[in-house]
Amino acid sequence: MSAYARLVEKAAEVQLVADSQALLGWDQEVLLPKGGVSYRARQMAWFSGWVHEQTTSAQWGDWIAEAESEIVSPSVEESANLREWRYQFERSTKLSKEWVEEFATAQVEAKAIWAEARKQSDFDRFAPSLRRLVDLCKEEAEQYGYEDVNYDALIQKFERGSSTRRLTEVLGGLRTRLIPLVEEAVAREKAANPLEGMQFSIDKQQQLNREIAEAIGFDFDAGRIDTAVHPFCSGMAPSDVRLTTRYDESDFLSSLFGVLHEAGHGMYEQGLVGENRGQPIGSSASLGIHESQSRLWENQIGRSLPFWERWLPRAIEIFPELAGVTPEAMHRHVNEAELSYIRVESDEVTYDLHILLRFELEKALFAGELTVEELPGEWNRRYEEYFGMPVTDDAKGCLQDIHWSMGIFGYFPTYSLGNINAAHLMKSAMQVDGIAKDVGKAEYASLLQWLREKIHCHGATYFPDDLIKRATGSYSDPDALIEHLRTRYL
Amino acid sequence: MSAYARLVEKAAEVQLVADSQALLGWDQEVLLPKGGVSYRARQMAWFSGWVHEQTTSAQWGDWIAEAESEIVSPSVEESANLREWRYQFERSTKLSKEWVEEFATAQVEAKAIWAEARKQSDFDRFAPSLRRLVDLCKEEAEQYGYEDVNYDALIQKFERGSSTRRLTEVLGGLRTRLIPLVEEAVAREKAANPLEGMQFSIDKQQQLNREIAEAIGFDFDAGRIDTAVHPFCSGMAPSDVRLTTRYDESDFLSSLFGVLHEAGHGMYEQGLVGENRGQPIGSSASLGIHESQSRLWENQIGRSLPFWERWLPRAIEIFPELAGVTPEAMHRHVNEAELSYIRVESDEVTYDLHILLRFELEKALFAGELTVEELPGEWNRRYEEYFGMPVTDDAKGCLQDIHWSMGIFGYFPTYSLGNINAAHLMKSAMQVDGIAKDVGKAEYASLLQWLREKIHCHGATYFPDDLIKRATGSYSDPDALIEHLRTRYL
Repeated sequence: MSAYARLVEKAAEVQLVADSQALLGWDQEVLLPKGGVSYRARQMAWFSGWVHEQTTSAQWGDWIAEAESEIVSPSVEESANLREWRYQFERSTKLSKEWVEEFATAQVEAKAIWAEARKQSDFDRFAPSLRRLVDLCKEEAEQYGYEDVNYDALIQKFERGSSTRRLTEVLGGLRTRLIPLVEEAVAREKAANPLEGMQFSIDKQQQLNREIAEAIGFDFDAGRIDTAVHPFCSGMAPSDVRLTTRYDESDFLSSLFGVLHEAGHGMYEQGLVGENRGQPIGSSASLGIHESQSRLWENQIGRSLPFWERWLPRAIEIFPELAGVTPEAMHRHVNEAELSYIRVESDEVTYDLHILLRFELEKALFAGELTVEELPGEWNRRYEEYFGMPVTDDAKGCLQDIHWSMGIFGYFPTYSLGNINAAHLMKSAMQVDGIAKDVGKAEYASLLQWLREKIHCHGATYFPDDLIKRATGSYSDPDALIEHLRTRYL
Repeated sequence: MSAYARLVEKAAEVQLVADSQALLGWDQEVLLPKGGVSYRARQMAWFSGWVHEQTTSAQWGDWIAEAESEIVSPSVEESANLREWRYQFERSTKLSKEWVEEFATAQVEAKAIWAEARKQSDFDRFAPSLRRLVDLCKEEAEQYGYEDVNYDALIQKFERGSSTRRLTEVLGGLRTRLIPLVEEAVAREKAANPLEGMQFSIDKQQQLNREIAEAIGFDFDAGRIDTAVHPFCSGMAPSDVRLTTRYDESDFLSSLFGVLHEAGHGMYEQGLVGENRGQPIGSSASLGIHESQSRLWENQIGRSLPFWERWLPRAIEIFPELAGVTPEAMHRHVNEAELSYIRVESDEVTYDLHILLRFELEKALFAGELTVEELPGEWNRRYEEYFGMPVTDDAKGCLQDIHWSMGIFGYFPTYSLGNINAAHLMKSAMQVDGIAKDVGKAEYASLLQWLREKIHCHGATYFPDDLIKRATGSYSDPDALIEHLRTRYL
């Protein structure tokens, strides 16, 4: 057996076990009785340890090296697998044991302190923990290595092939054009909430959500929808992809948009090639690509007029209280723009400003241009610059997100990449024969088929930027997103 | 670290992984999308292989040997652990690889052929498969070894310390006294079904079941109830014990008795000592002991008059249609006796006759006194002898159960052991100060506490027979069960 074949075989085994851990993780969020939490934590740790041991072993490294030398002219797929396996191996073996242990401890402590600090809107309390995490991540970047600036090494964890320079180019172009657009959009007159005072029972919401998820192409023979406090999607096997959502009995849109978003992630997972599971070519390309799929279905489709022309009548059958509402009113309602302090509560048009703010601050932190102590002041200054209103307290400002308390830096920009890629892909798809016509009738089979062929089936064969270029003919830029927002909001 | 300490540590790790497999198995029965089945099968196989590898390794064997010689005067617990680890190691290493593979193949083939044969009531079709499985299990018994007869080796898989002789003594005494009792019980005049024509929505059944499960002592902080085609209980962590039941909208008793039965298993699992998990002293004692717990709550408690005096009023609140029904009518209804061909549909009084029939036939098959070809004839002859009516076809006769098609012999008697032990334990508990009075008021905390102390907390420290003797002062015999059935049915 060749070294490459051994890698393929072993990777499939490791994935099989990692997928079992994914079920344990899913179950923990969805079903686990509270008494079972500590034992589950020990199980999760066992799996993490086992998987880490397999993929950082000397033997695994030897196989990679052997495979690299034994394959003289690799196929595109072989080349991609070896590229990613090499990259992952280097990364996971470069970190010292001391660093891994210190980081794990720092994460646990910071998360607890952050929760308290946020509750009391007391940044000073969180500052030492955050400083420690930033320092550790700077060390991490040094251990990983980078070409240009240390922040590059962190970005690569989530967005292979990308860089600070590339993200600055893409996201920077977005900011300058987004600020005036936001100003105009939020100034529009607000309509009354057409759902005001209505009640929507959970079982009926579930019925509607399921019908819609099925209609857009989520395969229930290969997936489920369940309930969780924080909605997520877990693709835990080639034909077992599980979404979760949460319910608000006074607003069926909350669970529905949750389902549309997670179903976008889920259809991507369902579109990966099952027989390549465990290999990079059978895995998703990046967070920015994953998010493009969720945002496409949530925003580009779910907030469009044809969608509501098709689905409002069915919603009225299920919730007769909705009888007087028109598709136009629903369309307007789901596209109201409003300034807010909190990222996760913000709408499609303002969302990316929240991300851009964080991206700029992370860059400055890692470039040594901003200290942790200066962070709240700089957050507030920039927030006012972007949004035109002052931040009243840090709980609504730089303490709002959990990411930094977990030592996650370089992740935020992938949210905006998702929005940009979604619009870029959608614009391209709409130029394909038949797709625009179908989408105009709220029929999505041809759109999904296009995404399957252009994005899903390739897994991580190509770097995200190249994948988008192959799919659309051009690298992502913010043009399509700005155009889309302008059409929708102005 | 001593060899014994290493065993304890490694056993806990193996259990942690086996418990993860238990979640995968539970999920497969309860939630898994149909597309996920084949991947899940591969995951299950991986876990079985990993666990088998750990507990049959030469190192594991060496540790057992070292521990046996290093501990000069073992405590009761150490002694029990070493006894069971030695026994399990011997068993799992004695079987040849060829045998394991041939048995696995024979099982798969037999199960498929049996399903077809049962559908067409065609025993001849199944006979060759059954012969092969019986022959393989005879070989298994030879490989395991036994003191008296080969069937002993099979019984030991499910009921440690027991034997053909011991079971013949216990169950034989039951048969002679049960046959006249059954005759009398089924001859009683039948009352009309008080639930006739009513409908019971699933969510209301769930509410009632949950309240009752909680009231008898099932801990929902350490467990759940879900839905599955074949009800079962899975204790997959010290504080994560999951029951399943199924629903019949025309009969709420079907799901309720399922819950009472499985909650009996579940409370046993919840009563095992969590910190001993992975060690025999933290595991259940045997199938016969497990079944005693389920049968105690299902039959001794769930079909008693005080139970219905307490719970019928609540059931009426939930299902107002029940308003005219009296506790006495419910009590009578849940204790109707009737002859039936099918074991799983039979009532408390006739159930054991079905088991005794199978036990006698298994004994004869393994003693070489009965050939597979003679099985249907002998089944039918004995059935008529026990039940007083002729068997019309093999689908309702010797083809009805799945067990033999899976090569499971020696398992059936544990069902009757469960009934016998349940009555024996109950009789003993009712003599303890306060318990009879509490049970008379349908308050069960003192009964559960007694079971916790006498049975649950000991795990497999003692052989099942000795455990019962320690709990009650005497070895199990059928007296208490006969007395109980006589009181209830005559």
